[in-house]
Amino acid sequence: MKPSAPSVELPNIPWEERPAGDSNVVWRYSKNPIIPRDLIPTSNSIFNSAVVPFNGTFAGVFRCDDRSRHMDVHRGFSQDGLQWMLDEGAIEWIYNDPDCAHSQYKYDPRVCWIEDRYYVMWCNGFHGPTIGIGYTFDFEKFYFLENALLPYNRNGVPFPRKIKDKYVMLSRPSDNGHTPFGDIYLSMSPDMVHWGEHRYVMGTSHGWQSTKVGAGPVPIETPEGWLMFYHGVLTSCNGFVYSFGAALLDLDKPWKVIYRGSSYLLSPQTYYECVGDVPNVAFPCATLYDKPSGRIAIYYGGADTVTGLAFCKIDEVMDFLKHDSTA
Amino acid sequence: MKPSAPSVELPNIPWEERPAGDSNVVWRYSKNPIIPRDLIPTSNSIFNSAVVPFNGTFAGVFRCDDRSRHMDVHRGFSQDGLQWMLDEGAIEWIYNDPDCAHSQYKYDPRVCWIEDRYYVMWCNGFHGPTIGIGYTFDFEKFYFLENALLPYNRNGVPFPRKIKDKYVMLSRPSDNGHTPFGDIYLSMSPDMVHWGEHRYVMGTSHGWQSTKVGAGPVPIETPEGWLMFYHGVLTSCNGFVYSFGAALLDLDKPWKVIYRGSSYLLSPQTYYECVGDVPNVAFPCATLYDKPSGRIAIYYGGADTVTGLAFCKIDEVMDFLKHDSTA
Amino acid sequence: MKPSAPSVELPNIPWEERPAGDSNVVWRYSKNPIIPRDLIPTSNSIFNSAVVPFNGTFAGVFRCDDRSRHMDVHRGFSQDGLQWMLDEGAIEWIYNDPDCAHSQYKYDPRVCWIEDRYYVMWCNGFHGPTIGIGYTFDFEKFYFLENALLPYNRNGVPFPRKIKDKYVMLSRPSDNGHTPFGDIYLSMSPDMVHWGEHRYVMGTSHGWQSTKVGAGPVPIETPEGWLMFYHGVLTSCNGFVYSFGAALLDLDKPWKVIYRGSSYLLSPQTYYECVGDVPNVAFPCATLYDKPSGRIAIYYGGADTVTGLAFCKIDEVMDFLKHDSTA
Amino acid sequence: MKPSAPSVELPNIPWEERPAGDSNVVWRYSKNPIIPRDLIPTSNSIFNSAVVPFNGTFAGVFRCDDRSRHMDVHRGFSQDGLQWMLDEGAIEWIYNDPDCAHSQYKYDPRVCWIEDRYYVMWCNGFHGPTIGIGYTFDFEKFYFLENALLPYNRNGVPFPRKIKDKYVMLSRPSDNGHTPFGDIYLSMSPDMVHWGEHRYVMGTSHGWQSTKVGAGPVPIETPEGWLMFYHGVLTSCNGFVYSFGAALLDLDKPWKVIYRGSSYLLSPQTYYECVGDVPNVAFPCATLYDKPSGRIAIYYGGADTVTGLAFCKIDEVMDFLKHDSTA
Amino acid sequence: MKPSAPSVELPNIPWEERPAGDSNVVWRYSKNPIIPRDLIPTSNSIFNSAVVPFNGTFAGVFRCDDRSRHMDVHRGFSQDGLQWMLDEGAIEWIYNDPDCAHSQYKYDPRVCWIEDRYYVMWCNGFHGPTIGIGYTFDFEKFYFLENALLPYNRNGVPFPRKIKDKYVMLSRPSDNGHTPFGDIYLSMSPDMVHWGEHRYVMGTSHGWQSTKVGAGPVPIETPEGWLMFYHGVLTSCNGFVYSFGAALLDLDKPWKVIYRGSSYLLSPQTYYECVGDVPNVAFPCATLYDKPSGRIAIYYGGADTVTGLAFCKIDEVMDFLKHDSTA
Amino acid sequence: MKPSAPSVELPNIPWEERPAGDSNVVWRYSKNPIIPRDLIPTSNSIFNSAVVPFNGTFAGVFRCDDRSRHMDVHRGFSQDGLQWMLDEGAIEWIYNDPDCAHSQYKYDPRVCWIEDRYYVMWCNGFHGPTIGIGYTFDFEKFYFLENALLPYNRNGVPFPRKIKDKYVMLSRPSDNGHTPFGDIYLSMSPDMVHWGEHRYVMGTSHGWQSTKVGAGPVPIETPEGWLMFYHGVLTSCNGFVYSFGAALLDLDKPWKVIYRGSSYLLSPQTYYECVGDVPNVAFPCATLYDKPSGRIAIYYGGADTVTGLAFCKIDEVMDFLKHDSTA
Repeated sequence: MKPSAPSVELPNIPWEERPAGDSNVVWRYSKNPIIPRDLIPTSNSIFNSAVVPFNGTFAGVFRCDDRSRHMDVHRGFSQDGLQWMLDEGAIEWIYNDPDCAHSQYKYDPRVCWIEDRYYVMWCNGFHGPTIGIGYTFDFEKFYFLENALLPYNRNGVPFPRKIKDKYVMLSRPSDNGHTPFGDIYLSMSPDMVHWGEHRYVMGTSHGWQSTKVGAGPVPIETPEGWLMFYHGVLTSCNGFVYSFGAALLDLDKPWKVIYRGSSYLLSPQTYYECVGDVPNVAFPCATLYDKPSGRIAIYYGGADTVTGLAFCKIDEVMDFLKHDSTA
Repeated sequence: MKPSAPSVELPNIPWEERPAGDSNVVWRYSKNPIIPRDLIPTSNSIFNSAVVPFNGTFAGVFRCDDRSRHMDVHRGFSQDGLQWMLDEGAIEWIYNDPDCAHSQYKYDPRVCWIEDRYYVMWCNGFHGPTIGIGYTFDFEKFYFLENALLPYNRNGVPFPRKIKDKYVMLSRPSDNGHTPFGDIYLSMSPDMVHWGEHRYVMGTSHGWQSTKVGAGPVPIETPEGWLMFYHGVLTSCNGFVYSFGAALLDLDKPWKVIYRGSSYLLSPQTYYECVGDVPNVAFPCATLYDKPSGRIAIYYGGADTVTGLAFCKIDEVMDFLKHDSTA
Repeated sequence: MKPSAPSVELPNIPWEERPAGDSNVVWRYSKNPIIPRDLIPTSNSIFNSAVVPFNGTFAGVFRCDDRSRHMDVHRGFSQDGLQWMLDEGAIEWIYNDPDCAHSQYKYDPRVCWIEDRYYVMWCNGFHGPTIGIGYTFDFEKFYFLENALLPYNRNGVPFPRKIKDKYVMLSRPSDNGHTPFGDIYLSMSPDMVHWGEHRYVMGTSHGWQSTKVGAGPVPIETPEGWLMFYHGVLTSCNGFVYSFGAALLDLDKPWKVIYRGSSYLLSPQTYYECVGDVPNVAFPCATLYDKPSGRIAIYYGGADTVTGLAFCKIDEVMDFLKHDSTA
Repeated sequence: MKPSAPSVELPNIPWEERPAGDSNVVWRYSKNPIIPRDLIPTSNSIFNSAVVPFNGTFAGVFRCDDRSRHMDVHRGFSQDGLQWMLDEGAIEWIYNDPDCAHSQYKYDPRVCWIEDRYYVMWCNGFHGPTIGIGYTFDFEKFYFLENALLPYNRNGVPFPRKIKDKYVMLSRPSDNGHTPFGDIYLSMSPDMVHWGEHRYVMGTSHGWQSTKVGAGPVPIETPEGWLMFYHGVLTSCNGFVYSFGAALLDLDKPWKVIYRGSSYLLSPQTYYECVGDVPNVAFPCATLYDKPSGRIAIYYGGADTVTGLAFCKIDEVMDFLKHDSTA
Repeated sequence: MKPSAPSVELPNIPWEERPAGDSNVVWRYSKNPIIPRDLIPTSNSIFNSAVVPFNGTFAGVFRCDDRSRHMDVHRGFSQDGLQWMLDEGAIEWIYNDPDCAHSQYKYDPRVCWIEDRYYVMWCNGFHGPTIGIGYTFDFEKFYFLENALLPYNRNGVPFPRKIKDKYVMLSRPSDNGHTPFGDIYLSMSPDMVHWGEHRYVMGTSHGWQSTKVGAGPVPIETPEGWLMFYHGVLTSCNGFVYSFGAALLDLDKPWKVIYRGSSYLLSPQTYYECVGDVPNVAFPCATLYDKPSGRIAIYYGGADTVTGLAFCKIDEVMDFLKHDSTA
Repeated sequence: MKPSAPSVELPNIPWEERPAGDSNVVWRYSKNPIIPRDLIPTSNSIFNSAVVPFNGTFAGVFRCDDRSRHMDVHRGFSQDGLQWMLDEGAIEWIYNDPDCAHSQYKYDPRVCWIEDRYYVMWCNGFHGPTIGIGYTFDFEKFYFLENALLPYNRNGVPFPRKIKDKYVMLSRPSDNGHTPFGDIYLSMSPDMVHWGEHRYVMGTSHGWQSTKVGAGPVPIETPEGWLMFYHGVLTSCNGFVYSFGAALLDLDKPWKVIYRGSSYLLSPQTYYECVGDVPNVAFPCATLYDKPSGRIAIYYGGADTVTGLAFCKIDEVMDFLKHDSTA
């Protein structure tokens, strides 16, 4: 069965209203974390994962580190986007070219419907981290396509449609370790396999985004531009702090930044964001968006250990960007 | 209205008795933190701040990092030293010389009445961190004086009176990052602008103070010497741990150390000291002192996120120094 | 009074059954930590310590860092292995050779009955960390023997009997700081003083044990080999994470690894393992073992701050090793 | 005038016979360096440059660092391949897309005739080093095409013909500094603009090639495979040492290594290789090859300061590879 | 005998005309080095030294490292500025305040006549490097004044006259090691003891001056501004390269840069600049200037081992600055 | 044929008188280097090697790095100690225990007659550098004994006779890279296999020996103590500088330092010491000593590339130590 394109209407988007007295643009789900570290018997942690609407319910690709701390991606389903069932085993990819089957690890997936299928992008261990691309039509069979870029790269994020007849991807060139730098670039492709026309989108800035920045969820198309949530990192004397904020990119030349929030939208402040395998991390990899209501649900990893949920409304984010922008 | 010099009596000093069964020289306030990270709508964190008696109540200069993680200093007032009202906006300094107005950031202020006014010293971003000096008569208008020293320096702390006709300041030469070294020096000035006659006070030692040390609150004059609370840093495999202890300096030659506690007086052990933007930090920047009762209230930052309060009695601190000293 | 060899029966081993619904091979004691950081008035922390059966009760040598953060080892006794009485002062060693008396610090002790006495091994500050060896017959007098190895070394762990007429020790060559590498080696000695015939046992591997590995408690003899619990370290962007797992070594050539678990048995996940002087540490230094029941009690340090207890059964650990082994 | 493809015959290849008594596979030109650091009035150094046969004589693209130490590429011509005339000014590239015109620096060019034109590849400063591609038909007008890859990359080297209808390029992913790692990868392109199907060719090995390796001149096609000269780096306590050696790659799947020399062919041993702006560097970027005689002339940079020439015979290199190979 | 102020005429300035065919603004003395490393029996090296006209001949203060590699400053005299006689022993300073007498090492002196005496500034080991100041009237007795600044600082260089009634000094804040950063600042003093009114002059730039810059000889007053020769450092993969260039500073506000040469004036290219205790160093600490002829003789250290001499004409340097300036 | 102990008379010691005008305690051979880098066809470099008197002529074990830069030790013979014949192939050791045969590399050998045979010690690649020990009776067959110590260690140097019935060895604990620290320790053994009773001999000091020190040739017994030549390292901004000096150790307790020269005896100053694979290295591994004349010939490596020779007289060295000592 070939799936059809997801609707812009998502009435069953998981949702909880902003708490009384809270003036923040983005607020947390009160029952966070929605996915604990040991949801499946073999998992050490489940975080930095991607969900999409699927046949009226929800499906996703989840980063699960097992108890040897090996990193891989697992399939999951949910009726309401809050309670998730994950496969105990990792996704088994179908490789056409055996030269590509080498993959030491997989993590931080993104999922995106483009044209006729769900594409998956993740950080793939191919002689160092780079961007692996695969796809599925049905969340049953998963096909590996190619490594889009040379190492070392992370945070490959596709746009949800072609722009000027090219597929478009954001990514963040890296090193092979805990990269102390990182800017967001954009690349274009006629076929999802060969990528070029690389453009610089934006680099580090001050404060919460002074060490590195990287794209988060698939950008959301708005009449004024592409809404990109992204993470930023500050280096304290005791390590990295991962927060996230937002920017608006030009619709036709998405490497042009229209607005860029100076403040973060969410920084690690709760126990499940501050205490865990990596303290002080809030890292978003997916959103759900209901266009009629303007509701956005943001899925993000907490402390590289669990998965949390946060909410916002698109018009309020746009207002924030217009007033807080430094671009 | 010109203010008058603060009295040595401070009957309204915030205070709470030592808990039963607690044998520590310094004990925490039971309702810590007294200032939460989001006391004002724009703040990410409020910590490492300075308070003084002011017209029978209390005033202070507070480090507030906003939600872009920009660092600046704000004015605050309190009736009881426990509940504080802070300005939402940062202090706007009056600059006489436009060449001085360049300041990328301001943090970790100290405030001290000397002669006829309140001097404020802080870490000022002047092509790297150095010691900015300003003053106020009334906590309404704040005048910038000069950068006292060349970069890179932090933890500039004034003495509360001239010694041998010179202003005196402690400071800690640094680098431009998360400085992995740091000794306390002393400098003298005829005019608060030109500083010289630099002397070495004390360097790192063992254990909790093995990586760096830096002066904390304005020293307290006692008949036996200047009581200096100071922070010390230990580097674990997972980062810096900031504790604080005490030393006694010679009254006339304050670069001579009479006593120096081998043990810390307070190390990060509570949730609000161990979990936050920078785990494991207890960092004092101010004390209040009631001479008749010997009570001291210590204001300190917790985890670079919130502000806490701790208490001690001066005679017990002096006893501690005499028995635990390594100097 | 000369002590007799400990029995293989230890009916009074501290014990608590696995919680319902828990499928892990190793589970935590529900009342952890059993030793708080301030058990004695001068202690900053008590962790990474060694216990043995002793005259029907239990004795131990404990790492106590005092409030200057000086590291030393203290004696302790317990009736039940759960509640401990520790000396306030550190052990005073009897030195025969004054050239050996130089010891800047002592930490991470192991204790082991061999032949006629209890040997103690610890990390000894002798111009850098190395392996100090001493012994006691009665936990009253403690004799210093020698530094077994040249600096820089840590985690010296004896085998509980001679093998082919030689004493045998595991150790982990290190550097003088927070060593970012570490493999387990084995050395042999005719006299506990001169060591040689050094053999390589095992090095780092993937995931939780990718930065360094080091022997933990004294190995337990089983018919199939020596059961060695050991710690492994993963380096996240925010520092080291210490977990522990297990391996089985050949009985006659104990540098030959028969099985080695791919997964950790316990990783830092509780508050007292994740928050403290060093976040994210679970570090075992001793076991008690009751052969008839197969019960094992593992003493381990949490967050370099407190001491916890965990339990397992030897047959389940052997099963785990056989199914999870990568060796 | 459209140029025609270069002949495989190059009777005027610069050449000097192996000195008597020299048993090395590669030997130096006796009049090295052929290009001094100050050949043009503004140059600080001229090295790591590319030459090709051109209309019966020779042309080239040369790395010239000027006296501000700015790096750029200059055009040059020579009658005999030994004496060169270089433009004083850097090449002015013609850009079609102004978004591409950003180039902070250009260095280490390679030049290669493919199909109908001379392609130039170099390390291009595009928010960090990456591989710029341009072309010229006549060494008069130079057109910029695109940055082939995302930063950070260096040593992009084209193959001299399409393989299975794709352009093929070697490159070495890097960081933004003095990269302490480096493996050789291969990428394919339908159009010289979009690159994918990335494959791993070979990584570091022992000794002279233990820190990093990178492709050098354009590979030479032989019946047995592609002959690739490449540089390797050893890190001594006093810095990098750049030598060069050779490998043979599969004709159809050029990411498969058939032979790889264990020994270097030339290491820095002369004054002009050991003393200069970067001591101990021999770095080849181009060869000339006369197929009938089997003569190869290798152009290489010395000490990042001057340009030298070395010689070998292809059959001797092939013999060397077969006997010294570790692949 | 009180000395009189040096004349602006210096007809006996050491001099050699520019070699034929040399188009460089600065050229080397053909008999360099003028001072070998072993001029005195105990010296390992003599470099980075300062000379002044003195009573019709020349005097100087020289950095001599002895054969334990201890660094100190020695007195020297010369009839012609080319052949020098140096004291075997280091200068013995007269200290008024014993708290100042602590000096672990002295190096890189500058000497300058101001008002009524010769001031000497050098890098003084006072708990890390800082700027020591002393003076002599007669090159017989040398008086220590004070450490002008807090550590860590190097390259303190005085202006030859007061500006707006203040002494003025350039310096370069540093760290305690091989400082990988460095900008030039300016400080003012009413009394040569207390320094303040710190201003930022200029920082690093591109190429040869991309890692750090520091003032060299005492600035030369010209009608258009202060001519400052300064060193710049580039970091290659094999270490620092020290070259020198020039800038012109505003006469009244000398922290304002009028011109700044983009190119270096001299970089290490000769054997005695490239080979020695520190390869690739050319480091100027003094000039002689004959105003009528416009001749300037520059004394500079080569490879941190020997002392060389270079020449230029002031009008040509001014022309260079005007045409090559990036300020 | 069993060899007999070498005589203390060595009339054929290589020798050249001190040049006229040279006042240094140690002077170089005028025909240095005596062994060029390419003495054998496969060698990249020959240095840091050990020679002994042998049957009236001379034999030695030489470090030869081949052209893959693999490090191994080769046998050599000489009639006069100046001209050497080296085997093209490396020594093939006879291993009794196959667990010991693992050796990734061998370098920096020392050779010493003790009791009845020639012992060889070298830096052996056994999971990192440590001290391998072997022996030969006849320079024909070489037997591997054991790795004396755990990694990481270098510069293992035996004493030429037992002291108090124990073999004695100096060594320098290290790390696995270009170790930036290093002190000299001493260990004792009853059997050359098991080593203990480790003692600290001496650490780094100032200047030329401020980064690390390590024993060089086998110590020479004198009536006043053991004469130990040793290397010291200074870290300049451009890397390590290896010089050598001398110390005198107590005859019975050789870990007690009687004298220690403050100055170096020889530092890298010639072309062959300053330019080569590692610039600025003079590294001694062997001496010859003729007791009747007091002549000492020192073999040392230059620039990690070639082998040089230097000379001194024992009474002059003893005088130097007595006057220049800091111990």
